[in-house]
Amino acid sequence: MNKKVILDKRPIGLPSEEVWRYETSEIPTPEEGQFVVKHEYVSLDPAMRGWMNDVPSYIPPVALGDVMRAGTIGKVVASKNDKFPVGAIVSGGGGVQQYSLGDGKNEFLVPANDALMPKFLGAMGMPGMTAYFGILDVGKIKEGDRVLVSGAAGAVGSVVGQIAKIIGCEVVGIAGGPDKCKHVVDTLGFDDCVDYKSPDFKSALRASLPKGIDVYFDNVGGETLDMALAKLRKGARVVLCGAISQYNTTGQIQGPKNYLSLLINRASMQGLIVFDYKDRYGEAVMQIGQWVAEGKLKTDEDIYEGIENFHSTFLRLFNGNKRGKLILKVN
Amino acid sequence: MNKKVILDKRPIGLPSEEVWRYETSEIPTPEEGQFVVKHEYVSLDPAMRGWMNDVPSYIPPVALGDVMRAGTIGKVVASKNDKFPVGAIVSGGGGVQQYSLGDGKNEFLVPANDALMPKFLGAMGMPGMTAYFGILDVGKIKEGDRVLVSGAAGAVGSVVGQIAKIIGCEVVGIAGGPDKCKHVVDTLGFDDCVDYKSPDFKSALRASLPKGIDVYFDNVGGETLDMALAKLRKGARVVLCGAISQYNTTGQIQGPKNYLSLLINRASMQGLIVFDYKDRYGEAVMQIGQWVAEGKLKTDEDIYEGIENFHSTFLRLFNGNKRGKLILKVN
Repeated sequence: MNKKVILDKRPIGLPSEEVWRYETSEIPTPEEGQFVVKHEYVSLDPAMRGWMNDVPSYIPPVALGDVMRAGTIGKVVASKNDKFPVGAIVSGGGGVQQYSLGDGKNEFLVPANDALMPKFLGAMGMPGMTAYFGILDVGKIKEGDRVLVSGAAGAVGSVVGQIAKIIGCEVVGIAGGPDKCKHVVDTLGFDDCVDYKSPDFKSALRASLPKGIDVYFDNVGGETLDMALAKLRKGARVVLCGAISQYNTTGQIQGPKNYLSLLINRASMQGLIVFDYKDRYGEAVMQIGQWVAEGKLKTDEDIYEGIENFHSTFLRLFNGNKRGKLILKVN
Repeated sequence: MNKKVILDKRPIGLPSEEVWRYETSEIPTPEEGQFVVKHEYVSLDPAMRGWMNDVPSYIPPVALGDVMRAGTIGKVVASKNDKFPVGAIVSGGGGVQQYSLGDGKNEFLVPANDALMPKFLGAMGMPGMTAYFGILDVGKIKEGDRVLVSGAAGAVGSVVGQIAKIIGCEVVGIAGGPDKCKHVVDTLGFDDCVDYKSPDFKSALRASLPKGIDVYFDNVGGETLDMALAKLRKGARVVLCGAISQYNTTGQIQGPKNYLSLLINRASMQGLIVFDYKDRYGEAVMQIGQWVAEGKLKTDEDIYEGIENFHSTFLRLFNGNKRGKLILKVN
């Protein structure tokens, strides 16, 4: 049987447990060209919160009654598609369930073994691709740039900052709590990390950026974005990757009141959706894989078990109780 | 004698007459390498409001006690500089006064005659340069793009929209009142113009943009920027040129709460300061001049007389009682 998490209600603010409903159905049977993947891991990402709202966006919202959309990785257990034989390891958007049916249009064969599978949801998956194209293509970093990264201990931010260090930038991170900040500096190799939960966050952030910012990679929005805008250097680039501080707001989104810093500094703020780089995923996976193999890029996966624990695990995206890539292991 | 307008106090909100003080001094005498320009026209621009605030920006604020900074055009009346002989027509930043001393570092010889002088403060001066580089270099318009321009009857916006039409774009303007809107469509040749003073502005704007926007050229900020952000197409560009709705605010600047439309649409918002294009002014003046000569680009100057009327004329920038380039003729 296939246990599934269904989106039952539209959330208002932080999703409560009642927005989901568990359902069990038969494991699907593949028709010609199809295959069945048994999910080993489900990816939990902040973007999922956006997909739950019934508003126009870069992809349609998850329909009420549908399986909650999510990235997945697992093994083919039944196949009528020669390219995806039984035993193949496949990543895709299988959703929060134990099994999914694929046809190869939106699934990828992944050169992983059992141990590597979680990395293909993290640094070598969508978050890694987002970091890679975001900081290199949109952020256009070059050696010597001063780079600020929010969500620095997160799945995307941790890779962004490490790539910026590899390129030769000065990199300051923002993360929640002294443990994460220590990790960001000591293990991930950022030059500095500022704790946004600290009462002296604002002054500490200013002190960490005496010469301003060439690139700000934004995962959080809100006050932090405004503080970063106030520190832009001439010609700076702001990469808009996310705004996790705003995703559960029940009021209006907080617009950046310092946006005219873009004007004064001839700076730009540009959004990024990783799907646009689909044709270049191979390039990024190869490069990131090489950096990982050389020990230049550390990967972090924070794995919780059990599809029945989906809701409490999902909330870790927003309460900060996780580090690196948040993953649900499907039992 | 040289009559001058001095910045006497920092304004809070809309400047009152008391922030200025009139002063009269001897007409300056040029030393070696210098020359004296008798101003015929003083340029009045929204940017001047920003220069009055004691905050860091792209140029230092006007110091209290200094002549109010402004663009000027006039004739050399005394010279110890061979490149700027008596009788030459010179544009520069001479300030709100009847005479100024130059050394040629920040002044330009202008191929104007008496009748053309005002145009060299408008479509063939800073506003024209701003429009040209803003819409072409930052906005990167191409044939068929859907372009929205606020301040469409203004010095910059009127040129922006006309250039976009020349390039082959569909162009919608935003202006204040039915007369200006009629002018923008009938004389300047925009495809449509929406009246922001009309009670049905929001619905009219939405109706005028059924397919959304590829480029939004923003002179106003505030609610209009938010409405434009909501209509961005994939890959759209927002050119930040000004935010006149916010310049006299006594509270906080209104940040664009729809800024995440940049993310969803992989769009960018980029600021522009025309001084960065100093090395290419010649290119723009030549091209705009040619369009004007061919009748493809109409120029509008709104000229008021008398340095003693500076304050009331300056306020026309903000109360909308002017059309096109606002200029003070120095008597």
